[in-house]
Amino acid sequence: MKTLLLICDGMADRPVPELANKTPLEIAKKPNMDWLAKRGICGLMDTIAPGVPPGSDTAHLALLGYDPYETYTGRGPFEAAGAGIELKAGDIAFRANYATVDDKLVVKDRRAGRIHGTEPLSAAVGEIKLKGAEFIFRSTVGHRATLVLRGDGLSHEVTDSDPHEEGKKPLQIEPLLHAPEQAVPAYPIIVGGVRKYVVRRRRAAKTARLLNDFSRKAYEILKTHPLNRERVKKGHPPANYILLRGGGIVPHLKPFHERFGIKGACVAAAALVKGVCRLAGMTVVDVPGATGGVDTDLDAKAKAALRALETHDLVLLHVKGFDEASHDGNARAKIGLIERTDAMLNQFIDMADFIAVAIDHTTPVSVRQHTSDPVPILISGPGVRADDVRTYGERSVAKGGLGWIRGKNLIPIIVDLMGKGIKFGA
Amino acid sequence: MKTLLLICDGMADRPVPELANKTPLEIAKKPNMDWLAKRGICGLMDTIAPGVPPGSDTAHLALLGYDPYETYTGRGPFEAAGAGIELKAGDIAFRANYATVDDKLVVKDRRAGRIHGTEPLSAAVGEIKLKGAEFIFRSTVGHRATLVLRGDGLSHEVTDSDPHEEGKKPLQIEPLLHAPEQAVPAYPIIVGGVRKYVVRRRRAAKTARLLNDFSRKAYEILKTHPLNRERVKKGHPPANYILLRGGGIVPHLKPFHERFGIKGACVAAAALVKGVCRLAGMTVVDVPGATGGVDTDLDAKAKAALRALETHDLVLLHVKGFDEASHDGNARAKIGLIERTDAMLNQFIDMADFIAVAIDHTTPVSVRQHTSDPVPILISGPGVRADDVRTYGERSVAKGGLGWIRGKNLIPIIVDLMGKGIKFGA
Repeated sequence: MKTLLLICDGMADRPVPELANKTPLEIAKKPNMDWLAKRGICGLMDTIAPGVPPGSDTAHLALLGYDPYETYTGRGPFEAAGAGIELKAGDIAFRANYATVDDKLVVKDRRAGRIHGTEPLSAAVGEIKLKGAEFIFRSTVGHRATLVLRGDGLSHEVTDSDPHEEGKKPLQIEPLLHAPEQAVPAYPIIVGGVRKYVVRRRRAAKTARLLNDFSRKAYEILKTHPLNRERVKKGHPPANYILLRGGGIVPHLKPFHERFGIKGACVAAAALVKGVCRLAGMTVVDVPGATGGVDTDLDAKAKAALRALETHDLVLLHVKGFDEASHDGNARAKIGLIERTDAMLNQFIDMADFIAVAIDHTTPVSVRQHTSDPVPILISGPGVRADDVRTYGERSVAKGGLGWIRGKNLIPIIVDLMGKGIKFGA
Repeated sequence: MKTLLLICDGMADRPVPELANKTPLEIAKKPNMDWLAKRGICGLMDTIAPGVPPGSDTAHLALLGYDPYETYTGRGPFEAAGAGIELKAGDIAFRANYATVDDKLVVKDRRAGRIHGTEPLSAAVGEIKLKGAEFIFRSTVGHRATLVLRGDGLSHEVTDSDPHEEGKKPLQIEPLLHAPEQAVPAYPIIVGGVRKYVVRRRRAAKTARLLNDFSRKAYEILKTHPLNRERVKKGHPPANYILLRGGGIVPHLKPFHERFGIKGACVAAAALVKGVCRLAGMTVVDVPGATGGVDTDLDAKAKAALRALETHDLVLLHVKGFDEASHDGNARAKIGLIERTDAMLNQFIDMADFIAVAIDHTTPVSVRQHTSDPVPILISGPGVRADDVRTYGERSVAKGGLGWIRGKNLIPIIVDLMGKGIKFGA
């Protein structure tokens, strides 16, 4: 049994007054999705929980069957995994920016003039050695980088150094937890008791100290680095400071094939989605031409997904551009991509036993941000209890036979339809 | 964005044979609610969980977005807050009755002849000082009062002294937890481990001892108090004993505006609802003429709510009389109040961006108590995915676009529609 799981990032919407109070999905011509909805079973899904707008990282954790409340502490680990860094459970990972600071350490440019080609800088910073943890520092795309701390007794419960605006100094990294003697009256119920709290607090303090030392050393290395001297000479802002944010601990995710007994692959352009799939132990396929925008090469992605289906039981095909169009408030671009994606879907109809269409979250063109409105899903394939839903849309599926599920329910439902359900009890 | 959240206490019902098997809500003429249902999105809500009849306190905790299973241990704290006592997280609060006991300490009247004007008694009892805790004792309405214990190492895990019937002696207050040596075999899984259990047990024993000492001292003070001597002379039962019940620990509720980023106000007559809102850090508006009965001054409440909307983002307007009519089994009075409330609602239609109508629990006129039947809800305002529900009723909303939610989901859903959703993840 082979399954294509198409995830359309941010495709769901709210009624748009300019579209006669219909949504882009309700307006678009999408004969393949509608045909699948007729043959299949439909429903609504709260990816995380009712009223909770999902992030891209938490949404995909949930869609792969992992409870984000148990596995998510920050974006860093998923970015780092998406950048191809080999991570271990327990590593602490941060998103990093190369930034420009002046002599008084005031941030003049959070992106160091959108610098490219920072590999010589990351090689130099990567030499930093501090007692207490191993540091892995890697440039990723443009002005971005990623920092991983590896060692015993570390914590993700620390603040960012990124002030998130220019004209301010980088922030001192602090433990997020108050000292226990302060905390006890304020938080009468401390999860795990005071003893565990004291340990957490000690780890956070150690991690904060290491990160502040790292930041200082990195600044010393970067301010005199030949590449930055060259940039200053040319009038470009030097990349002389590393701002850290989004720290999280790498969760132990039981690998997808061990949990569900099937081999999974992921075809995606978005590094964050790739990172989640990689941490879940799925095969991650790189596709040249997949940009993550509305101009992405859908055909190349489809071909890659078809190839992956030959050697895997389930292929997650992620199309990102809907979210981009929504962030731009561009309903027309969104409708266009829905129609192109629907056409692309046609070639899977004879090639996969099951086709599931899901959306990670709603991004209304009117709001331009992720919202918590539930998303429509459909599953088509042998044995499903086909309902009387005739078209795939936010409102049409509300009375479908799948009812109302959470994101983390989707893969178990699909896996059971594939004949690989995992019985609880005897 | 401004939101009116109308909560109609106990308005939901079951089909009534005398009403041609319709519910009061299905029979009543309510053009405004129906108009909002047509424009809005509807669904059913289990305030706590399917099959669990909610109390008024737990229902309103859930409706404000707090999980009652994490925050509720007894009614005392919410009554005390409703009576205007300033509470701190960790305080232990009890409901108290002035009662009449005879010389052998047998309860002759649990309400001391429904005594009024007990302030001289509470002033005298309020002087009690015992080592180990601070005692705050306050008369509230009629024969009722409230007792708060403040200090370290206290517990709510103790029994009531109120025997709940006359002709019996007040009960000795006991720790609710057995001695650990007995408990270990009986309860193989002790939450937090044996060590934590021993601490809990010690705190409960200390609290029980303090409360028994307090009860004895209060009896000594009250039996010779001039006000009681006067009552005996006049043939009235003396208020010579204080019965305690409903003990609970004051939870740390993260304030409403901190949790949701919006300012909330509450317009209610019921002290318990006010207490929950006050503990949640909302503005509580007092309305003269609001009685909590079917004769309540709806117009005064509406005016107060409209005024509160000027300075707050969300106003919770609570109407209590439906529950009273249901407890009396009076379907006609219930229908009348539904129609008057619907008419009152009209003046909000142009004054609030969002109008949500919710019910805290079902109180069937046939049962005269709270039941667990889910309640209908509607949310109307810009951007909602209007569904095809044409009328607001227990059964008509079952196929609505909001599906089936829990009480604690309601505020997050509304807040996200207001553009203030709190994303989980990045």
